[in-house]
Amino acid sequence: MLKKELLYEGKAKKIFKTENDLELLMEYKDSLTAFNALKKGEFAGKGALNCKISTLIFETLSKNQVKHHWLKTLEGNQMLVQKTTIIPLEVVVRNVIAGSLAKKLGRKEGETLVQPLVEFYYKDDALADPFVSDDQIVAMGWADLATLEHLKKEAGKINQVLKSMFEKIGLKLVDFKTEFGRNAKQEIILADEISPDCMRLWDLETNKKMDKDRFRQDLGEVEESYQEVYQRLQKGTQI
Amino acid sequence: MLKKELLYEGKAKKIFKTENDLELLMEYKDSLTAFNALKKGEFAGKGALNCKISTLIFETLSKNQVKHHWLKTLEGNQMLVQKTTIIPLEVVVRNVIAGSLAKKLGRKEGETLVQPLVEFYYKDDALADPFVSDDQIVAMGWADLATLEHLKKEAGKINQVLKSMFEKIGLKLVDFKTEFGRNAKQEIILADEISPDCMRLWDLETNKKMDKDRFRQDLGEVEESYQEVYQRLQKGTQI
Repeated sequence: MLKKELLYEGKAKKIFKTENDLELLMEYKDSLTAFNALKKGEFAGKGALNCKISTLIFETLSKNQVKHHWLKTLEGNQMLVQKTTIIPLEVVVRNVIAGSLAKKLGRKEGETLVQPLVEFYYKDDALADPFVSDDQIVAMGWADLATLEHLKKEAGKINQVLKSMFEKIGLKLVDFKTEFGRNAKQEIILADEISPDCMRLWDLETNKKMDKDRFRQDLGEVEESYQEVYQRLQKGTQI
Repeated sequence: MLKKELLYEGKAKKIFKTENDLELLMEYKDSLTAFNALKKGEFAGKGALNCKISTLIFETLSKNQVKHHWLKTLEGNQMLVQKTTIIPLEVVVRNVIAGSLAKKLGRKEGETLVQPLVEFYYKDDALADPFVSDDQIVAMGWADLATLEHLKKEAGKINQVLKSMFEKIGLKLVDFKTEFGRNAKQEIILADEISPDCMRLWDLETNKKMDKDRFRQDLGEVEESYQEVYQRLQKGTQI
């Protein structure tokens, strides 16, 4: 057994120590949460499904020279990842206006942005992860400007890879949220899952939502949509 | 009579056309509003008082080569200003953490920032003037990066002048909010009042609040505080 003591339990994942100080075991949970965990749900097998989807995505990112924490996927809902010190920012990349940005700016969902937009949110559940500007981040000492520029560049590169990958399987990548951390070599690497829990995916033809918005907005067919994303990805990445 | 038809009525000011197409007449109102006008109040003479305070501040800014819209002050609560096309951003400069920033980041009021912080809010009453990042502003086409850098530089310069001016009269400039516009020559100039309605001023010795927070927070002595700011400024700028 690789798994040792529990280090952290989040809304959708548990993180365990392993026998190797440089590696952590990440276990995907079946729970679904939204609106800063005010809304809760789950479906059996969601953890394993997100683990499999994330795996296919990490493999694709590897082929495209994106540095990330994933090392290998174990059975079921577990993967082994590099240990990192997380930069306390949620990094959001948007291709299309939706969700909180649509609400904040009074725009309709679906308007394509001229170029991808990167946003930062300060990771703090008690404060409901507030949206912050580059200057606020620097003023509060959470990261310096050079790090923010690096994060934007990396997030932009990841966006290009994912966008193209999803387009090939008939899905539009509307936006996604991720996190970065510093590994033992002090490299800044992608250090979060990438799954329908933290991205918006719309069917290219029908605009059907295929992501956690089905849960957030009570649209039904949550499990079926996650399953379909996985099946399309599996076919797509085999080509 | 210079004053012609009413062009615009805001929460604290009325703007009139004049006989000169390049100039506007700005009339300061006695009303006080807070929380996006959910809270309303007034005191007689507040408009004239803010007009006099703004005048002293504009004179000081002139001596420090800051470009602004003020041309001259007329009787009572009226001033003549250059006509500008307003950039749709509220520009906030902070020296000390207070107000919405303290609330958003869960910090206590009063913590001095290592260096002044400039923030942008998109001017839209219906959306309650949302806080926006540089990248969001550029993505939405409200201003380009070069303009934002220019605004930050100008706001920083204004902050230095005001901070020093207030320190001389025993007041700490905690933060202030202003706006910029483009005049007929397409110069970007300061184009808003500068008064205790849109800044936080704390007595340097006692930390007593001397600004609109007295109204926002029901602290009493609103009129007396505005009066004292004016009297101290009047003495200070005569030296």
